Formats: sequence, C-alpha cells, structure tokens
Amino acid sequence: MTRWPLPDPMRKALALAQEAGTAGEVPIGAVIVRAGEVVATGHNTPRTDHDPTAHAEIMAIRGAAKALGQERLEGCELWVTLEPCTMCAGAISHARIAKLYYAASDPKGGAVEHGAKVFEQPQCLHKPEVYSGMGQAEAAEMLRAFFRSKR
Amino acid sequence: MTRWPLPDPMRKALALAQEAGTAGEVPIGAVIVRAGEVVATGHNTPRTDHDPTAHAEIMAIRGAAKALGQERLEGCELWVTLEPCTMCAGAISHARIAKLYYAASDPKGGAVEHGAKVFEQPQCLHKPEVYSGMGQAEAAEMLRAFFRSKR
Repeated sequence: MTRWPLPDPMRKALALAQEAGTAGEVPIGAVIVRAGEVVATGHNTPRTDHDPTAHAEIMAIRGAAKALGQERLEGCELWVTLEPCTMCAGAISHARIAKLYYAASDPKGGAVEHGAKVFEQPQCLHKPEVYSGMGQAEAAEMLRAFFRSKR
Repeated sequence: MTRWPLPDPMRKALALAQEAGTAGEVPIGAVIVRAGEVVATGHNTPRTDHDPTAHAEIMAIRGAAKALGQERLEGCELWVTLEPCTMCAGAISHARIAKLYYAASDPKGGAVEHGAKVFEQPQCLHKPEVYSGMGQAEAAEMLRAFFRSKR
C-alpha cells in the first residue's frame, strides 16, 4: 500500500512542530504559503520567548506580514498542525488568511470546530476556507508523546 | 457636580488610545498593572507595524511578559479602552491575567460579553475577573470621532 503523500506545507509544519518539541515547547508548527511559495514559518515559543502569544500561527502570521510589508495576508494559506485556539483563530481572521489547513482537531483548546467556533460567529468579519485532517495522525502522536514525556 | 474620577490606569489607557488615533491607528489603549505599578503599556499599531496581531492588549501583554521575564502574568491587571476581541481575550486567558478592566463594550467585535464569549466557554482554562464601564463614554467617543474622520 502506498500512503497518499502529505502536501509539502504540512510536512514542513510537522517538521517545525518537531523542532518546537525538541526545544521543550508544545510541538505545534505553522507555515504560510502564497502562490506556492513559503512566506513565513513559525512554531510554538512562549516559554523560550517569554511571550504567551507566541503560538505557531501567531509567529507565522507576524513573520508573513513583516515579510510582505502589509497588515493583511490576502491570498495566503496557513498550514498548522493543530486546530487553532480562540487567539489564533481571531488572528487568522484579522489577517484575512484565505485558506486554513490544520492537521489534528483539538477538542480541549480548538476554536474552529470546537468551543468558541470563532469563524461561525456572526461578528466574524473574515472566514477563511477551512480544510482539516491531513497529517492528523502524525500531529496528534507528536503531541501525545510530548505530554507523556512531561508527566 | 463632581464627576467620580477615573482610575489612573484607565486614564493612561485612554491617553494611549488618543496616541494611537493621532498615529492613524484605531484609538485603543491598554495598560498592565501589577501591585499598583505599571508593567507595560500598548496601543493599536497594526498599520504602522504591518502586524495584524498588534492590538493594544497584545502589545501590552507581550511587553509585560518580556519585562517580567515570564510567560504568565499571574497577579497582573489589564486595563483597556474597548472590550477585547476573540484574539485578545484568548491571549488574556493564555497569559493568566488576573483582572480585566475595559471601558466601552463592543457589540461588533467584542468577545467577552458578545459573540464568542471566550471566557464563558467550557474550554477556557483561565477566566479573569472582569469589570467594565469605567471611561466608556470617553473611549467610545474617541472611536466614533476616529471613524467619522475616516469617512
């Protein structure tokens, strides 16, 4: 059996998640792509950076906005290994990200298909197209192994 | 008649909001206080900084975490001129802010008493004590004047 290959940006996001885990951070990675080119990447760094907002998505969004010299990321895709939380979903909306791809669902902290369901609020000014599930086994196993090692 | 004076941190947050407005940013300001001392301040800078996450609360939280050299802001109060959005409410929760004081309600974008009601989600791991309304007339008038001038 040949397993259908993961899209490149998700493979990269998983590699970034692994880097975060190795650094003692929760293993989550994110990649922003525009017209097939990687614009910015990020992984969780709140402990290292002393920054509670330093989630993978926020790091990637900030990096992409700086790289492109613009506040909004129209036409950009965000690939991330875990369902975004309320903070990150809000940032994705503010940034006008066109498409969101996430690997694993997060019933405990996710805010796309769980909890606050940020993009489904009538207040939400911009909803990305959302695709999920590609790479979910790899992403979820990395998180499980990380939290197992911390117990 | 003598008007009851605004608490100092809210007066400071309103002054920061005015600064933001003068710089062409949406006039919102935030102050973080611990044990009566100002730890960090922020105002909206997404346009200037090319950073869609640069809301007043995020700027103040990032500044306070850096200043204190810690990821979490236990024992800190956040004073802000407008009801936080989903992104900022999520960041407030991640940062473990003890008390949130905001001036004006924001039915269009707020996520504390409106929309996603982030702190009321069962997933929310940390809810600050929330107080609102002090300085609301000043904060709301500043926003109205700003958007009027942009039309």
